[in-house]
Amino acid sequence: MTQPQPICEAWRGAFLESQHLGHIVVCDGSGQVVQAIGDPEAVIFPRSSCKMIQALPLVTSGAADAQGLSETRLALACASHSGAPLHVTEVNRWLADLGLGDDDLRCGTEPSRDKALRFEMIRDDQKPCQVHNNCSGKHAGFLTLSQYLGAGADYVDPVHPVQLACRDAFEEVTGMTSPGFGIDGCSAPNFATSMHALARSMAFFATAHSRNDPLSRAAARLAAAMRAWPEHVAGKGRACTLLMRAAKEPLVAKTGAEGVFIAILPGRGMGIAVKAADGATRAAECAIAATLVQMGVLDADHPDVTNFMTPTLLNRRGLEVGFVRPPHTLFPT
Amino acid sequence: MTQPQPICEAWRGAFLESQHLGHIVVCDGSGQVVQAIGDPEAVIFPRSSCKMIQALPLVTSGAADAQGLSETRLALACASHSGAPLHVTEVNRWLADLGLGDDDLRCGTEPSRDKALRFEMIRDDQKPCQVHNNCSGKHAGFLTLSQYLGAGADYVDPVHPVQLACRDAFEEVTGMTSPGFGIDGCSAPNFATSMHALARSMAFFATAHSRNDPLSRAAARLAAAMRAWPEHVAGKGRACTLLMRAAKEPLVAKTGAEGVFIAILPGRGMGIAVKAADGATRAAECAIAATLVQMGVLDADHPDVTNFMTPTLLNRRGLEVGFVRPPHTLFPT
Repeated sequence: MTQPQPICEAWRGAFLESQHLGHIVVCDGSGQVVQAIGDPEAVIFPRSSCKMIQALPLVTSGAADAQGLSETRLALACASHSGAPLHVTEVNRWLADLGLGDDDLRCGTEPSRDKALRFEMIRDDQKPCQVHNNCSGKHAGFLTLSQYLGAGADYVDPVHPVQLACRDAFEEVTGMTSPGFGIDGCSAPNFATSMHALARSMAFFATAHSRNDPLSRAAARLAAAMRAWPEHVAGKGRACTLLMRAAKEPLVAKTGAEGVFIAILPGRGMGIAVKAADGATRAAECAIAATLVQMGVLDADHPDVTNFMTPTLLNRRGLEVGFVRPPHTLFPT
Repeated sequence: MTQPQPICEAWRGAFLESQHLGHIVVCDGSGQVVQAIGDPEAVIFPRSSCKMIQALPLVTSGAADAQGLSETRLALACASHSGAPLHVTEVNRWLADLGLGDDDLRCGTEPSRDKALRFEMIRDDQKPCQVHNNCSGKHAGFLTLSQYLGAGADYVDPVHPVQLACRDAFEEVTGMTSPGFGIDGCSAPNFATSMHALARSMAFFATAHSRNDPLSRAAARLAAAMRAWPEHVAGKGRACTLLMRAAKEPLVAKTGAEGVFIAILPGRGMGIAVKAADGATRAAECAIAATLVQMGVLDADHPDVTNFMTPTLLNRRGLEVGFVRPPHTLFPT
């Protein structure tokens, strides 16, 4: 088994202060690894990077169409959103359309990541609701499917029909039996898989538009929704949103907790998976941006790319004190 | 050069989700390495872990006594405090005693880490001041020394007499010429050194009470102040404060940004330095607690030790979803 390799460096003055190791796998449409750093067989939790997989049964079941879900709602089902008014308003409307409310969610509460709203709620002495949780769109999708199936209220139970359908879809698109699951921050099961299998699943999404089976049609529809509504997928200033917008070709980019990032490239039929072995978000953002720059998908000089691939570190007085960058050994030419 | 070694693991369900590598060095009173993991020669920035070194010139110069600084103020000079009312009130009084105010600080503003105060300030539409910065006690110390020396206002300039004195003290107690400096989050220069040299400097503090030269007397006094006032050094719920309080023998514990932690053991004349190579605080906290448990300084069953060495990971609904722990390979017996 290959060890994780350097994927990101943090410099201060003339010194390398910290270094992140990790795995990067690029898969083509046939599911083959075309480029890898670290260990393609490393077993990881995709965490929120696989929300588009967890949304597949919502579409393939017919629940999404039965409920008349808009493309923005499909994007929210795949989102780790900021809990900004844009997201919260739409998820609340969605819940209302289902005849449900915040208490029916099982994701737990989380303060909004939107500073203006968070401060406003503190001023008004309002506690965060479950709808502010970055996963509330995914959970609204789970509730939609659960209601359509006439299944029980505890839709995050690993043996609930919703989660069994998610596992089936997950194993289908990763092409691998999951060795097991953990419970995610939002209480839903998250299925373990290999780096290769996660990249392969993203290549499945990237090639889905060229196939006509129900699972592929659902995958193409979800990828298109994420590309069409990048701010719904994350939010202002966030990596997923800005990298999708900065791309020179169709791109879906999605973060996951503990240093995961994926990319879907429909124009090339390729999928990418990144995992910082130590779980650091700054490393995953740097590495996915660097990988996409190296492939020609992103322009290294675009300010929103620079901001994640080679961000300047400012201190509390706004002075430049260092920078983050990918190591020179990443994808040597 | 030895590579960093595993020092901390994050588990979710039955799977190792993330892993941190790092360096740990334990030095005895003669400055020799008695135990090491990773590379004792690795060059690092100590960041805030060396604030007691940066406070040495404040004492050796006579400035602390000329100003009649209390032991709590000496503890604050060595602190990365939470910006809680306890800290802010005392630093404000200290500045007033100097005839100075918030604008004379050069540390930059930072929101208070004390949730009640932070929320109160948001409700009252108050912006964070420099005094809320976790480094404001160190900077009040710098100002005290600068005023005593009759030096200029820009006390964070690397060639200002205050910083030249800090560099001299740093090189003296580390026993090593610093290869250079970076600018810290608070705008003061932070001098690079090796892991061995940082641990050696902490052994200097740990043995200082047995010597009678001015530098040793100052070191013993600062270490005693930190031990006597653990809440001034950090704050409620923080690792430095709780580990010092939980110790079965005299202990000074101090965190630094980017995964640094040090410990001073006056009863043994030993010093410890920890650096998570990726800069993760959770790894540094886990590794320093594990090292101190292995040495018999901390009890693994003490809840405040467990909370940093083997914390349970709770999700947004408060469910146990995983745990952090030191690897079994850390200090094999």
